[in-house]
Amino acid sequence: MDQLIEAIQRTQNPSIIGLDPTDALVPEPLLKAFVQEAAENVDDPAEVAPAARAMAYYQFNCAIIDAIADIVPAVKPQIAMYEALGPTGIDVYTMTCEYAHDQGLYVLGDIKRGDIGSTAMAYAQHISQPTDDDVWHEDAITVNPYLGSDGIEPFVEAAAATHKDVFALVRTSNPSSSQIQGLKLADGSQVYERVADLVSDWGADHIGTHGYSLLGAVVGATHAEQGAALRERMPHTFFLVPGYGAQGGTAAMVRGMFDRNGSGAIVNSSRGVIGAWQKAIAHADHSPDGAGMSVQQALELVSTNARQAAITMRDDLRAVMP
Amino acid sequence: MDQLIEAIQRTQNPSIIGLDPTDALVPEPLLKAFVQEAAENVDDPAEVAPAARAMAYYQFNCAIIDAIADIVPAVKPQIAMYEALGPTGIDVYTMTCEYAHDQGLYVLGDIKRGDIGSTAMAYAQHISQPTDDDVWHEDAITVNPYLGSDGIEPFVEAAAATHKDVFALVRTSNPSSSQIQGLKLADGSQVYERVADLVSDWGADHIGTHGYSLLGAVVGATHAEQGAALRERMPHTFFLVPGYGAQGGTAAMVRGMFDRNGSGAIVNSSRGVIGAWQKAIAHADHSPDGAGMSVQQALELVSTNARQAAITMRDDLRAVMP
Repeated sequence: MDQLIEAIQRTQNPSIIGLDPTDALVPEPLLKAFVQEAAENVDDPAEVAPAARAMAYYQFNCAIIDAIADIVPAVKPQIAMYEALGPTGIDVYTMTCEYAHDQGLYVLGDIKRGDIGSTAMAYAQHISQPTDDDVWHEDAITVNPYLGSDGIEPFVEAAAATHKDVFALVRTSNPSSSQIQGLKLADGSQVYERVADLVSDWGADHIGTHGYSLLGAVVGATHAEQGAALRERMPHTFFLVPGYGAQGGTAAMVRGMFDRNGSGAIVNSSRGVIGAWQKAIAHADHSPDGAGMSVQQALELVSTNARQAAITMRDDLRAVMP
Repeated sequence: MDQLIEAIQRTQNPSIIGLDPTDALVPEPLLKAFVQEAAENVDDPAEVAPAARAMAYYQFNCAIIDAIADIVPAVKPQIAMYEALGPTGIDVYTMTCEYAHDQGLYVLGDIKRGDIGSTAMAYAQHISQPTDDDVWHEDAITVNPYLGSDGIEPFVEAAAATHKDVFALVRTSNPSSSQIQGLKLADGSQVYERVADLVSDWGADHIGTHGYSLLGAVVGATHAEQGAALRERMPHTFFLVPGYGAQGGTAAMVRGMFDRNGSGAIVNSSRGVIGAWQKAIAHADHSPDGAGMSVQQALELVSTNARQAAITMRDDLRAVMP
């Protein structure tokens, strides 16, 4: 986790930007721009539309990365948004990771994989490969703990070998997260607390220079009190905190997830930053999806507003930091 | 679930074959056969080795599919084994699904995805697409329930629209599965039992002609008694039962997971079938990885032994069926 912590220190910014493009978040001129190019490059007609959208997503991502690379430490591409387009989307996911990595950003692949040991070993290839041969270009990934230790150990071992990181789901930000995570156990604790203890144990042999394990935890911004309690419960576990902004989390709600030195957590915003252009356009003369603009105009609109939103978020978080 | 149940009835065979190729399971002559072709087709030198392996995996899969398509109802490609190769592996995953589907097999994509609602909607594209535009070619997928209902509903809705199926993890087959799934709750039950009840509820509005919901459950063969109890507890939930064979599950252990009519479950074997050639070769004059054989010889060895192992498994299961 040292690399991430040092990037946060360098930028004085504990935020991570989710690169989660969808057709609704990418301006319409950009979505339309690559249809011809896709038709020339793809043999299967069924793949033209996904390929054109994937190319649009990539341009969109690059514009955002360029706009924020000097002020944020990290980005978190959500692989589902790319996987939704099929194999061509996965290509663009890896291209996005590589581009962000090349701009000096820490790349946290939000993949939430998890399976039995032999299968987890295969998924661990996401973070197992030496830089020169790497096809994924992720510095860290998220994983799901439901299968227990033998589904997590292969990721921890891979991360230890390559100096990368892993974040296991503990308490997620979504409305129905308590249905399983909040079940009351015989000893009075809740399921997510026991998962927190397991995650602490699984990462205990791999504490870095700054006091945090390479195995972090996902703790949703929407659970302010539980997050603060988890901060005490797992002092060597770094938190990835999703749910700020569009999902309802605020800076005040995430305050307790940082440690006394203002370290220990990084807060994610996706739509609030990459979709900021849509709020701006509501005050302008353009249609809500950007139709009628040139591709260049659309990219500038996206960039300018993403940077502004990232600065606002950074300052919002700085204001509550210890 | 009707389509799967009818395929099982047609073949009189409640088994599903896991297409989980690895470098250790694919004969060496096949792994080496595509290096030149990959070098011609891939721009990035780092991708030559993964592309060559992916092509070998595809030939291996096709040989197995051809060998078993008339005697088994379904196959279960494990996406992790393909994802381990990067984007080129994902291509071959979809090609494998398409080839199996074209041979009349029900294709259960073992992807174990799971995330918050908006992200689950993106993952649900695996099973959302009309046949003509489909890039994935899966008839069903597996999902992880740790995030609760809003991470599952998008999959259920997609499956209802396309007449496909979803299988949620309930009780997995791996050694550490009890660490979370087996936690004792305040009411005396265990976590997996509550998950079972949730999965029953989530699928209750989508019961098919044969009495089973489109939302099935993954219940490991290694938990014989718990599996039999779950069969009673969730009478409208079809079971995918992994863990037979290499992981230690036997026909006697899975018997209780079928209903009184011999329906209600399908049992998976992966290594036991696709790696059957390795046991055969131990008695022959070849080296254990098949080195020295021609590609044609290797494919024949794989096919013959996969078919024989699939027949043995079928007969083993038939012998314990009610």
